[in-house]
Amino acid sequence: KRLRDYGIEIGVLKTGKNNAITDVEGVKVGHTTRYKGEHIRTGVTAILPHSGNLFQLKVPAAIYIGNGFGKLAGYSQVKELGNIETPIVLTNTLSVPVASDALISYTLNANPNVRSVNSIVGETNDGWLNDIRGRHITQDHVLDAIDKASSGPVDEGNVGAGTGTVCFQYKGGIGTASRVVTDKFGGYTVGVLVQSNFGGVLEINGAPVAKELNNYPSQFKYDVDGSCMIVVITDAPLDSRNLERLAKRAIMGLAKTGGIASNGSGDYVIALSTAKKNLIPYSSEEIHRESKVMRNEAMSPLFLATIEATEEAILNSLFAAETMTGRDGHEVKSIPKNKILEILEKHHKIKGN
Amino acid sequence: KRLRDYGIEIGVLKTGKNNAITDVEGVKVGHTTRYKGEHIRTGVTAILPHSGNLFQLKVPAAIYIGNGFGKLAGYSQVKELGNIETPIVLTNTLSVPVASDALISYTLNANPNVRSVNSIVGETNDGWLNDIRGRHITQDHVLDAIDKASSGPVDEGNVGAGTGTVCFQYKGGIGTASRVVTDKFGGYTVGVLVQSNFGGVLEINGAPVAKELNNYPSQFKYDVDGSCMIVVITDAPLDSRNLERLAKRAIMGLAKTGGIASNGSGDYVIALSTAKKNLIPYSSEEIHRESKVMRNEAMSPLFLATIEATEEAILNSLFAAETMTGRDGHEVKSIPKNKILEILEKHHKIKGN
Amino acid sequence: KRLRDYGIEIGVLKTGKNNAITDVEGVKVGHTTRYKGEHIRTGVTAILPHSGNLFQLKVPAAIYIGNGFGKLAGYSQVKELGNIETPIVLTNTLSVPVASDALISYTLNANPNVRSVNSIVGETNDGWLNDIRGRHITQDHVLDAIDKASSGPVDEGNVGAGTGTVCFQYKGGIGTASRVVTDKFGGYTVGVLVQSNFGGVLEINGAPVAKELNNYPSQFKYDVDGSCMIVVITDAPLDSRNLERLAKRAIMGLAKTGGIASNGSGDYVIALSTAKKNLIPYSSEEIHRESKVMRNEAMSPLFLATIEATEEAILNSLFAAETMTGRDGHEVKSIPKNKILEILEKHHKIKGN
Amino acid sequence: KRLRDYGIEIGVLKTGKNNAITDVEGVKVGHTTRYKGEHIRTGVTAILPHSGNLFQLKVPAAIYIGNGFGKLAGYSQVKELGNIETPIVLTNTLSVPVASDALISYTLNANPNVRSVNSIVGETNDGWLNDIRGRHITQDHVLDAIDKASSGPVDEGNVGAGTGTVCFQYKGGIGTASRVVTDKFGGYTVGVLVQSNFGGVLEINGAPVAKELNNYPSQFKYDVDGSCMIVVITDAPLDSRNLERLAKRAIMGLAKTGGIASNGSGDYVIALSTAKKNLIPYSSEEIHRESKVMRNEAMSPLFLATIEATEEAILNSLFAAETMTGRDGHEVKSIPKNKILEILEKHHKIKGN
Repeated sequence: KRLRDYGIEIGVLKTGKNNAITDVEGVKVGHTTRYKGEHIRTGVTAILPHSGNLFQLKVPAAIYIGNGFGKLAGYSQVKELGNIETPIVLTNTLSVPVASDALISYTLNANPNVRSVNSIVGETNDGWLNDIRGRHITQDHVLDAIDKASSGPVDEGNVGAGTGTVCFQYKGGIGTASRVVTDKFGGYTVGVLVQSNFGGVLEINGAPVAKELNNYPSQFKYDVDGSCMIVVITDAPLDSRNLERLAKRAIMGLAKTGGIASNGSGDYVIALSTAKKNLIPYSSEEIHRESKVMRNEAMSPLFLATIEATEEAILNSLFAAETMTGRDGHEVKSIPKNKILEILEKHHKIKGN
Repeated sequence: KRLRDYGIEIGVLKTGKNNAITDVEGVKVGHTTRYKGEHIRTGVTAILPHSGNLFQLKVPAAIYIGNGFGKLAGYSQVKELGNIETPIVLTNTLSVPVASDALISYTLNANPNVRSVNSIVGETNDGWLNDIRGRHITQDHVLDAIDKASSGPVDEGNVGAGTGTVCFQYKGGIGTASRVVTDKFGGYTVGVLVQSNFGGVLEINGAPVAKELNNYPSQFKYDVDGSCMIVVITDAPLDSRNLERLAKRAIMGLAKTGGIASNGSGDYVIALSTAKKNLIPYSSEEIHRESKVMRNEAMSPLFLATIEATEEAILNSLFAAETMTGRDGHEVKSIPKNKILEILEKHHKIKGN
Repeated sequence: KRLRDYGIEIGVLKTGKNNAITDVEGVKVGHTTRYKGEHIRTGVTAILPHSGNLFQLKVPAAIYIGNGFGKLAGYSQVKELGNIETPIVLTNTLSVPVASDALISYTLNANPNVRSVNSIVGETNDGWLNDIRGRHITQDHVLDAIDKASSGPVDEGNVGAGTGTVCFQYKGGIGTASRVVTDKFGGYTVGVLVQSNFGGVLEINGAPVAKELNNYPSQFKYDVDGSCMIVVITDAPLDSRNLERLAKRAIMGLAKTGGIASNGSGDYVIALSTAKKNLIPYSSEEIHRESKVMRNEAMSPLFLATIEATEEAILNSLFAAETMTGRDGHEVKSIPKNKILEILEKHHKIKGN
Repeated sequence: KRLRDYGIEIGVLKTGKNNAITDVEGVKVGHTTRYKGEHIRTGVTAILPHSGNLFQLKVPAAIYIGNGFGKLAGYSQVKELGNIETPIVLTNTLSVPVASDALISYTLNANPNVRSVNSIVGETNDGWLNDIRGRHITQDHVLDAIDKASSGPVDEGNVGAGTGTVCFQYKGGIGTASRVVTDKFGGYTVGVLVQSNFGGVLEINGAPVAKELNNYPSQFKYDVDGSCMIVVITDAPLDSRNLERLAKRAIMGLAKTGGIASNGSGDYVIALSTAKKNLIPYSSEEIHRESKVMRNEAMSPLFLATIEATEEAILNSLFAAETMTGRDGHEVKSIPKNKILEILEKHHKIKGN
């Protein structure tokens, strides 16, 4: 059951049909989950902004670095050119190179004469539960996640790149959510998908869960302490400048869950706009391109949508994730749902109470 | 009465002695309040990181641009050189030039041969209550705020640069708060002062106040809608790189009050470190300087401190501000405290309930 | 006589009609020169990207900070929103506030209900020749420069904001140049105007002038050593992202004159695109705007044009500036033209030799 | 023969002993050259800032993105944390992932419990001469370049990562140079190494070579047109902020060779400071670290050193590279030295003439 199935509603805006990143038309998500033996707890999640040839029809994009202690591949070209040209792949920290290589293979195969491509790979560190040093992701695992990508509801929790992640000292994972802005502002959808693997002082819909459970780090450690990858996709027609602004708001949603973007957390936001008219052909006879984009003044509702969807996507990841035992017998428990529901009820955070 | 006087406690860290930016040793704050006739509702707030000659003994600093729809003076030199060399002055949008000029006067007077100085002036737009087009701030008002700066408790609400501001559709103003990290991490203090003048969907300590009062913008307007200036000062020895990281966390604290950094909001964070050994002499025979700074790994507690202090400083500004009538009869009410306390009580947000 | 009048040709591209920033249709430039008594050697230069109401019809823009030791006003809003809404004013360092105030006056007068405006003011420090501490620029001087702005040839050398500047230890000043790209790339014009006030090891069209004249700083001083303001305007339809890329290339042109962007040099580039279809109305019923912009792939010729025009604009400023005596009897000589022409001839840098 | 062996001297500062990046004490460079059959023309160049365990003793660093059309790995963590923790590896565009993977292997092998490492890999596209789609670099090739790294003179031209590169339509490759600042400014060395693979309008020591040879692109192509990777290392004690400033100056050196940072050129500068006292231990009981860094005012001589060394390193790469035939029979000629020496002589660019 997802957050809303318990009557917990984040924010004031409406969700899309499936309350998922795939509510943005054309977006597909696929997972490869690697759960094997006692030590392998990792995976790959692929997000496809559209189903065509992404290299031939690039997508306006921006990446915002909330906290740059991470190994994301592809940042500088997106910053410079304002677009992405591959699927977005999420995986574990030490598998960024193989995932990046897989995206090269994927692109070369589909584009015979291409000799340069900018892979977009995000990561968090699942090394507590997963034998990350073993680098158990192969190119096939990555290509498989892309192949299996589909629209509709998205699997959450211990799947794909979220298989072995830890969030607020509980089991984290993949989560997603969406929001729709009012017709006056175009009726656009903002979808968010997260790979949650970070720490802080957990709050759920404003209830001080960590405080009440007395479960938060009293002393922060000298250690790599996770990360959060956030993918934001919208059908609102945005150029890369306004996409970067949108991306910045996702970190504000993360803040509302109690995340603090700790030193060791690699918190990145990848934002894309799928508006068809603004897609960018790789080759063109033209020196110009025409586009239709939102005015700056129309951004605020999309900002709120991004904040709400990010907060909810993170919470969905926690609600979906189940207790897991992994590397060297490490166990990470899922959030204690019964206790949490009690706390939320006490704090009037459940609808109908 | 301040937030804590009602039993409302934000976060998990301890406050400093006065729960104010002045808890950082040596920091002084001064206000000039301009409340005159029916139309003048504005002012100046000056923050002095130390009491010496700031130009001769510069302070490591960084400025983070949360949302750059604003007119802050001084950004690029701080970014390039990593320090500030004047008091920090906050005022209204159209008085940035006169405040900047006043800081030049202030510096030239104290430094006979100096011919270049980088004024730091932040602003928000108080044009709803104040006749901002009248530009009613003079150099004397600015110099007066600097002169009057003192340590100890800080006046909040409708004072200084907060005289005419509006926040979450209620009366905003100046607010402050502080946090102290544990001895293990140096026992340092982080102090925050805000000039609150922005919008969003108000939450107080996690309680959905705006939702329950049904008081939030259902449609965001095509308009300049305020800003938030945030000043963060710490005695932790930080270089400009880690000060910029600290500054970024202040926007996460703003997010927890329900702020969304809307399009028209100029949200800036100015962060400084007052650690004496790292102050930078203007002239020196030396080509080197020695410094002692926090390791990256020791930053996380300071990040949490910044988030908590920012959230509380904003809420303190709302609790201190009183209903005001200004330009053209515009009235902005203070937050409805009784109703809000009821809501907070219902949501178990008041200690002892 | 300008550089080309001596047969010295920079680069490989063609110039516009007047080899000036005003070759971009609609662009106007105006100067106020303050030369009075023994100590006042300063001024104002105003650049108008179009002749309409700039606040009501904003211009896509970007600012690149080559070296941020400077006090330019207006950076963050341009970065955030991607446009400018006032004339661009250049003046001396300590007159940025008064110039900024003048732009507020200018905008408020023309726009009765406006209560927020982002002034764009660049500066360099003319304090060697000018009594800069006296702050001898008034709002009227600024408004006068705007009023007098005209199209056609642009006065260079000791005029406007270049009145008291020093460049490569010679008299600097205002300079301008332009380039036109081939029809295949749209036939667009790139115009550049500089306020030259910086140091390094002077080269002219590749000839090692400073080396041959043995006139360069063998030891760099612990001092504020000038700056260079560069304004780049094009009629090529560029969004703010590609304008920032264009702006970065201007520093490459500066490099070719021997400039090194020394520590104390505030080197900024303001880039604008005047393409009519992309101008941005202040108020609009629409949430979208349509635009036609250059593809990334079509940028390279514009990059080359910017580099060449910047190099030539700086050299034009040196060729136009005349020996000046100013504050405290300080004298700064113009470049020794005869010797330089000999050097250029020897190095085969003059056409026809 | 290198540039200086022909009597061509760039700039005014002295070189280090070998006029190479290895003039900075402790720096080592290693190449793996892949020249095989008709189609494989690629390689790897590794630069080691010191000979210890780089992960355990990190090096202050910054990366400046001159033009971000490139796939460099490792940017964001360097930006955030201000240091690097692996050797720097240069290779071809599509081999970044395998090189990144090799650096992970290298680090994991030497550091048994480490589960996160930020590989630094730069690249340019050698796809004209090399069968880049074949991805002919393996982890062993990368590890081999690291193993073979040595101090002393550095091989230039068609070696390592420069094996298959093209520069100004001639054969490019690896080049290096160094400069020493005067004792007054610490007597520090700045060393530069480049992988040259870009275009523009070639100038050599200010002589308009491309113009005289009539060999420059009259129309820029819609195509990926190379890149330039620049590594700058100094023993001057610099923090990451001043290293970023240093890095920016390298692009000014590139400009002086006629480079224009064209749209398709991925021009990146990686800058490091090897000053021993400032190296950063991975684990420490301390929350602080002490450092001794250059004052901002002492940076200008280092800026000039960087500009000169970069210009000369690029020219050295051209002088060392030899004509090569590669993929599909593509031939790229070396620069026509005799003609060029004639041009330089005519322009008085050769010492003694």
